[in-house]
Amino acid sequence: MLVIKIGGGAAIGEGGYANFATDLAALAKPVVVVHGGNAEFSRLSSALGMPPRMVASAGGRVTRYTDRATMDAMLMAYCGKVNKTLVATLQAAGVNAVGLSALDGRIASGRRKPVLRGTEDGRVKVFRDDHAGTLEQIDPRLVRLLLDAGYLPVLTPPALGEDGVPINVDGDKLALALAIALGADGLLFFSDTPGLLADRADETSLIQEINAAAPEAALAVAGGRMTVKVEAALDAVARGVGRVIFADGRAEQPIQRALAGRGTTIRAESTVHS
Amino acid sequence: MLVIKIGGGAAIGEGGYANFATDLAALAKPVVVVHGGNAEFSRLSSALGMPPRMVASAGGRVTRYTDRATMDAMLMAYCGKVNKTLVATLQAAGVNAVGLSALDGRIASGRRKPVLRGTEDGRVKVFRDDHAGTLEQIDPRLVRLLLDAGYLPVLTPPALGEDGVPINVDGDKLALALAIALGADGLLFFSDTPGLLADRADETSLIQEINAAAPEAALAVAGGRMTVKVEAALDAVARGVGRVIFADGRAEQPIQRALAGRGTTIRAESTVHS
Repeated sequence: MLVIKIGGGAAIGEGGYANFATDLAALAKPVVVVHGGNAEFSRLSSALGMPPRMVASAGGRVTRYTDRATMDAMLMAYCGKVNKTLVATLQAAGVNAVGLSALDGRIASGRRKPVLRGTEDGRVKVFRDDHAGTLEQIDPRLVRLLLDAGYLPVLTPPALGEDGVPINVDGDKLALALAIALGADGLLFFSDTPGLLADRADETSLIQEINAAAPEAALAVAGGRMTVKVEAALDAVARGVGRVIFADGRAEQPIQRALAGRGTTIRAESTVHS
Repeated sequence: MLVIKIGGGAAIGEGGYANFATDLAALAKPVVVVHGGNAEFSRLSSALGMPPRMVASAGGRVTRYTDRATMDAMLMAYCGKVNKTLVATLQAAGVNAVGLSALDGRIASGRRKPVLRGTEDGRVKVFRDDHAGTLEQIDPRLVRLLLDAGYLPVLTPPALGEDGVPINVDGDKLALALAIALGADGLLFFSDTPGLLADRADETSLIQEINAAAPEAALAVAGGRMTVKVEAALDAVARGVGRVIFADGRAEQPIQRALAGRGTTIRAESTVHS
C-alpha cells in the first residue's frame, strides 16, 4: 500500500492532477492520496480580503495565523475546491476516488493551540483564536474500510480538535502519520522540485538515495523546510514504512517515475541490523 | 433508515446545525444527511465578484447559471464550508459523521446540459459552459458501506457528469433519489417554514397531513417551489419511502418535532389497496 502526498503549491495545477490520475488508474496497488492546497488557500483568502499573515516563532518557525474566518477559507480551498477537483479528475480517469478531510470519521485529531506568540512584520505580538494544532491521533478505520471496498481515499487537512473545532495541521505530517498507522510500504512526497538537491539552485544536483542508517551527508545539504521533510522521512522509515521518496509533481507519469527511482529515495539499510 | 435534507437557506445557520447534531446524537436509527448551501454559495460568489445570474426558461423555471468559475465557488461553499462545518458540529456532539459530495464514490451521476437558453434581466440569451445537470443514476454502495460501519454520511451536491465534470443538481432531488435507492422508511425536508401552509403568509395555517391517495387539496394550495416539493414527496411515497415530512429547520429538536408530527406528513393511505 502506498501513501502519496501531492503538494499544494501553484506548480502542480490541474494539468498535474490529470497526470496523477492517469498514473493512479494504471497502478495495481491500493493507494491513499493526501493533498495540500496552500496556493489555492492564499489565493482565495486574498480575494476575500484576508491575505496570509505569517508569524515567526521565537525558534524561527514560520506559521500562518488562522483565525475563524481564515479557517473557513481553508475549508473552502482545501476541502472544497482542491479536494473535489482532484476527485473529479480521478473519476474522469476511471479511479473511484472518495474525497475526505481529516475531520471526517475522526481520521486525524489533535490539540488546538489557540494562542500564537510570534513576530509579524518585525513586531512581537500575541494572536488569539488561532486554529493551528498538533496532530495527536490517527484513526485509520475509515481509510481501511474504503481501501478494502476498492475506493481510493483522497485526504486533506484540517484535522479535528477538541470540541469539534477544525485545526490546521501540516499535510506532510498528516501523510506521514497515516503511512505509519496504515503500515504503508511506500510514502511518496510530490512537490515542485525533483527531490533533495545538493545545490538548491541546481535541479540537476539531485541526491538519488539516502541511507537511513547514515543520513548525515544528506541532512547537511538539506535546508529549511527540506530538513523537516528529511527528518520526517527518517522517522517514517524507522517506524516501519518501507521507503520514502521525494519526487517531482510537475512531471508526466509522476508516480511511475518516482517508483522507478527518479527522485530521492530514503530507505533503511537492510544489512545494518546484523 | 431516515434521509434528512437540511436546506441551505440563511435561516438555518450554525446554531441550527447544533440543534440537528443534538437530535442526531440521540436518535437510535441510521441516518443519511443531505444538505444544501445556497445562501453560502451566493454570499461567496458575490464576495468573489460573481453575483448569482438567474435565468428563466421558456417554461418559467428559474435556474442559476453556473459557469466554471461559479462551479468552483459552489465546490468551495457546499463541499468546503457547509459540509465540513456540519461534520465538525456533528463530531462535537459525538456523532461520527463523514462528509461527502455526490461526486465521491460516484454516489450520484447524471447528464450535463452545457447550453442554457433563457431570459436574464428581461432579455433572451444563450449561456454556454453551464454546469447544470440532470440526476440519472444513484450508486448507494458507498453510503451503505458507511452506514453499516456505523458512520453518519453527510452528502451534498454537486454530482458527477460525464467526463468527470461536476454538475449542479438540486439537493432536494438528490435526497429524494437517495431515499428511494436506499429504501428509506422516512424522508424529512427541513427548511425555513413550518411545512406546507394553506396560506403562505400565515405560519399557523399548517397542513398537517397529506394523504398521497388524495393530494388534490394540498396541491391546490401549494405554490411555486412547494408544488415541486409536494410532487416529489408523492413520488417518493409511491416508490416505497414510508413517509415524507416537511418541517421547520429553525426549531430546537427539529428532527424529534418532525417525527412527532409537527410539520406536514405525506404518507400512502394504507387502506387504499383493497
